[in-house]
Amino acid sequence: MPSEPFDVGVLSPGSRGHDATVSDAAVVDALVAAEVALVRAYAAVGVAPRGVAEAVSDALGWQGPRAGCRGHGIDADALAAAGVAGGNPVIPLVAPVRDRVPADARAWVHRGATSQDISDTALVLVLARAADAIVVDLDGAVDGLTAFARAHRDVPAAARTLTQHAVPTTVGARAAGWVRGIRRAASRVRAARDALPAQLGGAAGTLSAVVADVGDDTAAALPGAYAAELGLQTPDAPWHTQRWPLTELADAFVQALDALGVVAADVATLGRTEIGELSEPSAGGSSAMPQKANPVASVVIRAAALRAPFLGATVHAAAANAVDERPDGAWHAEWPALRELARLLLGAAHAAGDVARGLTLHPDAVARNLALTGGRIVSERLRGVLVPLIGASRFTELVAADGDLAAHVRALPEAAGLDVDALLDPAGYLGLAPRFADLEEDPA
Amino acid sequence: MPSEPFDVGVLSPGSRGHDATVSDAAVVDALVAAEVALVRAYAAVGVAPRGVAEAVSDALGWQGPRAGCRGHGIDADALAAAGVAGGNPVIPLVAPVRDRVPADARAWVHRGATSQDISDTALVLVLARAADAIVVDLDGAVDGLTAFARAHRDVPAAARTLTQHAVPTTVGARAAGWVRGIRRAASRVRAARDALPAQLGGAAGTLSAVVADVGDDTAAALPGAYAAELGLQTPDAPWHTQRWPLTELADAFVQALDALGVVAADVATLGRTEIGELSEPSAGGSSAMPQKANPVASVVIRAAALRAPFLGATVHAAAANAVDERPDGAWHAEWPALRELARLLLGAAHAAGDVARGLTLHPDAVARNLALTGGRIVSERLRGVLVPLIGASRFTELVAADGDLAAHVRALPEAAGLDVDALLDPAGYLGLAPRFADLEEDPA
Amino acid sequence: MPSEPFDVGVLSPGSRGHDATVSDAAVVDALVAAEVALVRAYAAVGVAPRGVAEAVSDALGWQGPRAGCRGHGIDADALAAAGVAGGNPVIPLVAPVRDRVPADARAWVHRGATSQDISDTALVLVLARAADAIVVDLDGAVDGLTAFARAHRDVPAAARTLTQHAVPTTVGARAAGWVRGIRRAASRVRAARDALPAQLGGAAGTLSAVVADVGDDTAAALPGAYAAELGLQTPDAPWHTQRWPLTELADAFVQALDALGVVAADVATLGRTEIGELSEPSAGGSSAMPQKANPVASVVIRAAALRAPFLGATVHAAAANAVDERPDGAWHAEWPALRELARLLLGAAHAAGDVARGLTLHPDAVARNLALTGGRIVSERLRGVLVPLIGASRFTELVAADGDLAAHVRALPEAAGLDVDALLDPAGYLGLAPRFADLEEDPA
Amino acid sequence: MPSEPFDVGVLSPGSRGHDATVSDAAVVDALVAAEVALVRAYAAVGVAPRGVAEAVSDALGWQGPRAGCRGHGIDADALAAAGVAGGNPVIPLVAPVRDRVPADARAWVHRGATSQDISDTALVLVLARAADAIVVDLDGAVDGLTAFARAHRDVPAAARTLTQHAVPTTVGARAAGWVRGIRRAASRVRAARDALPAQLGGAAGTLSAVVADVGDDTAAALPGAYAAELGLQTPDAPWHTQRWPLTELADAFVQALDALGVVAADVATLGRTEIGELSEPSAGGSSAMPQKANPVASVVIRAAALRAPFLGATVHAAAANAVDERPDGAWHAEWPALRELARLLLGAAHAAGDVARGLTLHPDAVARNLALTGGRIVSERLRGVLVPLIGASRFTELVAADGDLAAHVRALPEAAGLDVDALLDPAGYLGLAPRFADLEEDPA
Repeated sequence: MPSEPFDVGVLSPGSRGHDATVSDAAVVDALVAAEVALVRAYAAVGVAPRGVAEAVSDALGWQGPRAGCRGHGIDADALAAAGVAGGNPVIPLVAPVRDRVPADARAWVHRGATSQDISDTALVLVLARAADAIVVDLDGAVDGLTAFARAHRDVPAAARTLTQHAVPTTVGARAAGWVRGIRRAASRVRAARDALPAQLGGAAGTLSAVVADVGDDTAAALPGAYAAELGLQTPDAPWHTQRWPLTELADAFVQALDALGVVAADVATLGRTEIGELSEPSAGGSSAMPQKANPVASVVIRAAALRAPFLGATVHAAAANAVDERPDGAWHAEWPALRELARLLLGAAHAAGDVARGLTLHPDAVARNLALTGGRIVSERLRGVLVPLIGASRFTELVAADGDLAAHVRALPEAAGLDVDALLDPAGYLGLAPRFADLEEDPA
Repeated sequence: MPSEPFDVGVLSPGSRGHDATVSDAAVVDALVAAEVALVRAYAAVGVAPRGVAEAVSDALGWQGPRAGCRGHGIDADALAAAGVAGGNPVIPLVAPVRDRVPADARAWVHRGATSQDISDTALVLVLARAADAIVVDLDGAVDGLTAFARAHRDVPAAARTLTQHAVPTTVGARAAGWVRGIRRAASRVRAARDALPAQLGGAAGTLSAVVADVGDDTAAALPGAYAAELGLQTPDAPWHTQRWPLTELADAFVQALDALGVVAADVATLGRTEIGELSEPSAGGSSAMPQKANPVASVVIRAAALRAPFLGATVHAAAANAVDERPDGAWHAEWPALRELARLLLGAAHAAGDVARGLTLHPDAVARNLALTGGRIVSERLRGVLVPLIGASRFTELVAADGDLAAHVRALPEAAGLDVDALLDPAGYLGLAPRFADLEEDPA
Repeated sequence: MPSEPFDVGVLSPGSRGHDATVSDAAVVDALVAAEVALVRAYAAVGVAPRGVAEAVSDALGWQGPRAGCRGHGIDADALAAAGVAGGNPVIPLVAPVRDRVPADARAWVHRGATSQDISDTALVLVLARAADAIVVDLDGAVDGLTAFARAHRDVPAAARTLTQHAVPTTVGARAAGWVRGIRRAASRVRAARDALPAQLGGAAGTLSAVVADVGDDTAAALPGAYAAELGLQTPDAPWHTQRWPLTELADAFVQALDALGVVAADVATLGRTEIGELSEPSAGGSSAMPQKANPVASVVIRAAALRAPFLGATVHAAAANAVDERPDGAWHAEWPALRELARLLLGAAHAAGDVARGLTLHPDAVARNLALTGGRIVSERLRGVLVPLIGASRFTELVAADGDLAAHVRALPEAAGLDVDALLDPAGYLGLAPRFADLEEDPA
Repeated sequence: MPSEPFDVGVLSPGSRGHDATVSDAAVVDALVAAEVALVRAYAAVGVAPRGVAEAVSDALGWQGPRAGCRGHGIDADALAAAGVAGGNPVIPLVAPVRDRVPADARAWVHRGATSQDISDTALVLVLARAADAIVVDLDGAVDGLTAFARAHRDVPAAARTLTQHAVPTTVGARAAGWVRGIRRAASRVRAARDALPAQLGGAAGTLSAVVADVGDDTAAALPGAYAAELGLQTPDAPWHTQRWPLTELADAFVQALDALGVVAADVATLGRTEIGELSEPSAGGSSAMPQKANPVASVVIRAAALRAPFLGATVHAAAANAVDERPDGAWHAEWPALRELARLLLGAAHAAGDVARGLTLHPDAVARNLALTGGRIVSERLRGVLVPLIGASRFTELVAADGDLAAHVRALPEAAGLDVDALLDPAGYLGLAPRFADLEEDPA
C-alpha cells in the first residue's frame, strides 16, 4: 500500500509502524488540504463565496486546521507518476482537485498559487503533525526516564570517562542528564513547529496574479487568512528562497536524535555482557545465538542518530544554495531529506519511550562494577587525604601498585587512625550526584 | 504497490520509474537469492545433495548468478512488519523460505548463516545490479555528449571563471570535459561493482556452525562456492565490520553524481534566460507561467548531486564506527543510505542520458554572448600584443575604458599596422580547445 | 605568529584578518580566564580569601566577564606541544598558571576541576565572543541591505525560477528577502550565545572533589558563581555529555551562513557577464585577464556556505555519539569543527557587510533583462486577460510563437481595445513586491 | 612559527607534530615549486633556455620532482595577507618569485599560467607528499598488527555482536580483520596518489596564452613536461572543473580513517575497565584521577574518524557544484577541507602505528570474559547437539535458565554420555578464526 512505504520495514526497521504521519498518503492529504485552504482563504478575505469554500471543503474531506484532508480519493501513485515530467507533484494535482469540486468552484482552485506554495505548505503541514507526534513520544520518554532517575537517585555507580572508571556517580544522576537533553530538544521541536509558516507567494513570491485578481490590500490579507485556515503562522513575506523555517525544524529534529542517541549509547554500553548494569525491556533474539538479548531499540536509535546529522545538513546545504526566486535544484533536495529525518525521529522517539518505560537496572552488576577496582575509583578522594600525609610520588606508587588497595593503605604508618573502609567506600563519594538526579520543573 | 516506493514519485521525482532495481521487491528477491545460493553452495562443495539444491532453486525461482529470485511469493510487506522486533528482515525470512521448499531440503536453508550474511549479500546483489543499470546510462550519456563534443568541436564560445567572461573556449571542449568526468566515474563504478564480495561468516565471522557441521576444509571452501553461485567475489575473510566494499561503491556513486552534477550545473546555467546557449530536450512547463521552459532534468540531477555527498558520508560514518564483531547501530545505518544513493544515481544517470542525447545548442546565443564585451574577452591576447607597445598602465586603462574597444585600439598610434579585427576575433584565440574536444579512447 | 594561523590566509582567504577572536592566542586567553574565574568563584562563595582571587586575577591579566585574560605570558605553542600526550591542552596548563600566582594562591588553582571544565568553558567563552563580533557584522549587513532595499523598493526586475524568467519583482523585494533571512539568523545567534553555560562538574560531573572540599551546599553554589564571573549562564547540571549548548550555537552559525549564502549566490548570479544587474564594491582582478571583475566577496561567502553544513553536522555527530560521563572521541571532534565554523562565519559576515554597504545596481541592465523576452515575462498576466478572449490553446500558441509578442497580441481581433503596451509593461505587474520590500521592525 | 599551525596542538592534539607535510610552509614550498616547474617545463619543451630554468631553480631552492622548493625566503604570512583581495595566494606570489630570479628569467615566470594552475598543482604536490607519509605509517600499523595477529592467532576470545557475547573467535582473527581493512585502504591511498595529475590550463583551460606564445604543438607538449618535472601524472586535459583527482584521494583518505577508526573503536572498547582485554602502549594520565589509563591514541583516532566523512563529503560537494570554467565558490571550499583531512589522517596513522607496535593483550581478562557466561557463549554449538536430543523449546529454556549451564546439561538424562566440559569449551568452537588470522600476501 503506497501509504506505508515498504522501505521503512525492510531497510529501516526502526521507523516501521510509526511513520503514518509522513507517509505518502499523508503527503497527498496535506497537498489537498493546502489547495482547499486556499479556497477557504479567498472566502475568509471576502472575495470567494462562503458556499464555494464549504463545497470545496466537503468535496475533498477537509478536516480543519493542521488536520489535512481525508477520503478525497486522489491517488498518490498516479500523482507521483504524473509528477515526473514537471519535477513536482503539484502540477498534476490541480486537475483531479478541480474534478472533485462543483463546477462553479473550479475557478477558485489553485487560484493565484504556484506549485511551490502548495508543496511547501503541505510539507510544513506534514512536518508539523510529525512534530506533534514526536513531542508526545519525547514527553513519554522524559516521563519514563524521570521516574527512573527518581527511583535510583542515590544508587552509587561507576562513572566512566574515556572508557575508564573515573569516580562514582549515581544511576539517577546519569538518567537525569538524559532527561535534561531530551527536554531541551523537545522544547526546540515545539518552538520550531510553532514557528512554521504557510507559504503563499504566487509565481515568484510577489502574489502577482492575486493582486491582479483582487487588488493589493486583499492580496496582502490572503496569506494571513490562508495560514489561519491551516493553523500555521503568517509569514512576513514568501519564503521561497529563505528556508529557515525548514532548517530550524531540521535542527531541532537532529537535536532530539542527538539526545536520544546519548541515551541509546549509554544503554547499549551499560548492557554489554561484561558490564550488565542495564537492560532494555524487550531485547531482541538471535536465530543463531539463543543466549543473546540484543538491545534492538538502542541499536535502532543509534543508527538513526548516526544518520541524522547528514540529513539535517542536507537541508542546510539546500537552504544555503538557494538562488533566484526559486532555485534550480536546492529546493528539490529538501523534501526527501526532511521526510526521512522526520521518519527516523518518529521511530526513534517511539523506541525511546519504550526503553524509558521498561528500562531495568541490575543493582548487583552496578555494585560489582563499582567494586571492580578495589577502591581505586575513589583515588581522587584518597589523593586529597593521603598526599598531605605521604606526598604525591608515594601516593602515585600506591595507587598504581597491584593488589588490595585497602591493605596498601592500612600498611601506611601515616594512615594510622584513618577509617580506610569509609575512605574507600564509593557511596561516600558521590558529590552532588543525588542532587543532580533531582530534575528541575520543566518550563515547557 | 510496495515494489515501487511512492516516495520516489512524490518527493523524489527524478528517480521515478528508474528504481525498480532497488525497489523493495528487488531487495526481497535478493534476500531469497542469498538463501538459495547458500543451499547451492553446500551442494557445490559436495555436502548437500545436488537434488536438494535444484529443488530449492526451483521452489524459489532462482534466476542464476547476479539475477536474484522471482515469483517466490514472499511478501515484502509482511516481512517488513515482522522484521521490526529483531531489527532486520532476515530473521522472519527463514520460515517462509523453509515453507516453500521440500521437507528434506529444509535443514539446508540458512544453515550456518547469520542474518548479516544474508542481508549483506542481498544488499550487494541489489547494488551490483543497480551499478549495472547505472553504467549503461552513464555510457549512454557519454555517447551522447561525445557526439555533441565532436559536432561542436570548433565552435567558439565564452569561457567563464568566477561568473565572468574569461577567454574563449569551444563548445566541444566544454562537453569533452563533461565526458572525461563521467567516463572516469563510470570506470570507478565498474571497478567497485566488480570488487563486491559475497558475505558468509556465520554468527560472528568465524563460520563456527559451518565448521562444526562440515569440518574446516569444506567450511573454508564454502564462501568461494557461495560467491560463485551469486556472481560475486570471494572475500578473503568475512567483512562484517570491514565495510570497504560498500564505501568504495558509495564513493564511486557519489563520484558519478559529481560528474553529472557538473553537466547539469553547466546546462542549467547556460540555459538561463539571459545566456540561452543550451536547452534541454524536454524542458518542463509551468502552470503559472506559460512562457517558461524549465530545465527539469538538470534540476533533478542537481538536486541529486547536492544530496549525494551526505549519503556517501553516511556510509563512511557507519564504516568508521564499526566495532566488535557486529556494531550496535553503525551496520543498520548503511542500508537506507546506500539504497537512496543508488536510487538517486539511477534517476540522475537516466536523466543525464536524456539530456545528452537531446541537448540543443543555440549558436546565435553563443555568438552573441561571445561578442558581448566587444572583444574584451580576448584581453589576455591583447595584453600580449599591446603591453610591449604601450606599457602595462596604458593597457589597463584601455581595457577598462567604456565604449568600443576596437575603436580604442585603432586610435592608438602604436597600434598602426595591427589587424585589429583579427586581433579581437575570439575564433582566433581558442588555444587548444579544439584539441581538448577530441576525446581519448576510453580504456573501459 | 601562532596567534594568527596562517591557514586562514593561504587556504581560507575569506577569514583572513577576521579571526583574532578565535585565534590560538584567544583560546589560551580563554583557558587562562577559565582557571582564574574558578579561583574568583571560590572567593565569591566565601571559601577562598578575596585577596587570593584578586592576586590571581592580577597575576594573569583578568579582564572581567566575557573578556578573557591578557598578558599572562603563557605560550600557546608550548602548551600545544605539551598537550599531545594527554590529548588536551588543559593538563599542561595548570603548572604555568600556578607558577604565575603567589604561593598561597596555588592551592586554589584548578581546585576540584577537570580538564573538560576548563576547556569547555574556554571554548564557550571564545565562541561567545565570536558570536558578539558576528552579530555586529550581521547587523551591519542588515543595515546596508535594508538601505539598498529601500532605495530600490519599486525598481522592476525580472524574477527567475529554475533559471528562467518568471514574472517581474522589484530589486527591493529581493533585497528585503535577504534581510529577513539574515535578521532571523542573527536573532538565533544572539539567543544561542545568550544561552551558553559555563561548565563545572569535576572529574565526572558530580563535583566530587569540590563537595569533599567545601561541602554540598557551597559546592552547589559554585557553578553559579563561576558562571557569573564569566558572564555565562549557570547550567542546571554539568553538560559533559549533553552538548546542546554547542549544537544550538553551531546550528545558528550555519543558519547565518545559509542566509549569507543566498545573498552571495544572488549577487554572483546577477553579476554574471550576461546579466550584469549587480556588482560588488571591490571586485577582484585577475593577473591573466585584465578585463575581469571577479565577485571575490561573494565567492568567499559561497565557499563558506558550502562548507558550513558539514561543520555543523560534525558537531551534531559528536553530540549524538557522546557516551559514558565523557566520550572516547566524540568530545575531541567538536573543538576544531566549531572553531572553523566560527572562523568561516566571522569572515563571511564581514565580507557580507562590505558587499551590503557597497552593492551597486546597474539599472540599465535590470531594464534590459526585463525587456529581454519582449513582454513574455508577464505571460501570467496576459493569460488572465487573453484566455477568456481567445481560449487556452490559442493563447499557448501565441506565447510560444517567435517574434514580437506585442505585435502578435495587437494582431488579435479579440484584443482590439486592449492597451497592449500597458498590458505588457512589467512595471504594471509587480504584485506586492514593493510592499514586501518594506521591512518589518526588527524585534531584535 | 607559521609552518606549525598552533591549531593542531590546542584543538587537534592528534595531529600535533605529524603535520609538517601539510603546514603552511609546505604549501608555500609547493606553490614556489609549481612556478619553478613551469619554467623548467618551458625549457624541457625547448622554448626557454636551459640556463634560465637552472637559474630559476637555483634561485628558488628547487629540490626535484615531488620535493618542492626550500630556502626561497618567501614569507607565508605576507603571502596570506596579500591573498585576501583576490581570494587566493597565487596572485601575490608572482612578484616575489620574479624578484628572486635573474632579470632575463622573469618573463618565463608564471608564463601562460593562471592562479588555479599553480594552486591546484601545489595542492596536489602537498597531498602527494602527505600520502607518502601516510602510507609509511599505515604500513607500520599493518606490520605491527600483523605481528600481533600472528602472535595471538589461536587465542580464544569472546566475539561480540550488538554488544553481546556471540560465539568465540580468536584475538588473532580480530586483528587480522583490522589489517585487511588498513591494507585495502593503503592500496587505495597509493592508487589515488599515483593518479594525481599536474594542472596546467591557462586562463580557462585552453592554454590560450601558451598557444599564442609557442604554438599549438609545443603548447600541447607543455603539460606533460610540467607533470614530469613534478613527478605527477599528465592530465588528459585541464581539470579545472573535473575534480576527481581530489575526490578520489579524499575518498581514500576517509577510507583509511574508517579502517583506523575500527581498530580504535575495538581497542577502546576492549580496554574498558570491565573488559580489560587490551591496553594501549602509552595510555594517558588524568590530573584528577590518578588511577586512570586513558586510551588517548584510540580517542584521537576515533575523533579523526568521526570527522573525516564530513571533510571528504565537503570535497565531493565542491566537485559536484563546479560550474563554468572555474566555479564561484566550490573551488575555494576544497582547499581547507582537503588539508584538514590530510592532517587528521597523518596524525591518526602515526598514532595507529604506535598503538599497533605496542598493543598489549591481557590474556587473563580475555579468558575471564570468555568464561563469563558459563559456557553460554557456545550456545550455538550446544543447540546443534542438544536440540536433536531434547527439542527446541526445552533447549531454549535450558539456555535461559539462571545458574550453572554445565550442571543443567549434565542433569539432562538425554545428555548422558556427552563430554559436557568439551562441549562447553570455547577453545573447541573457534570455527575458521585461526585460519582467518593468517593474512594473505599483500599484493601492494
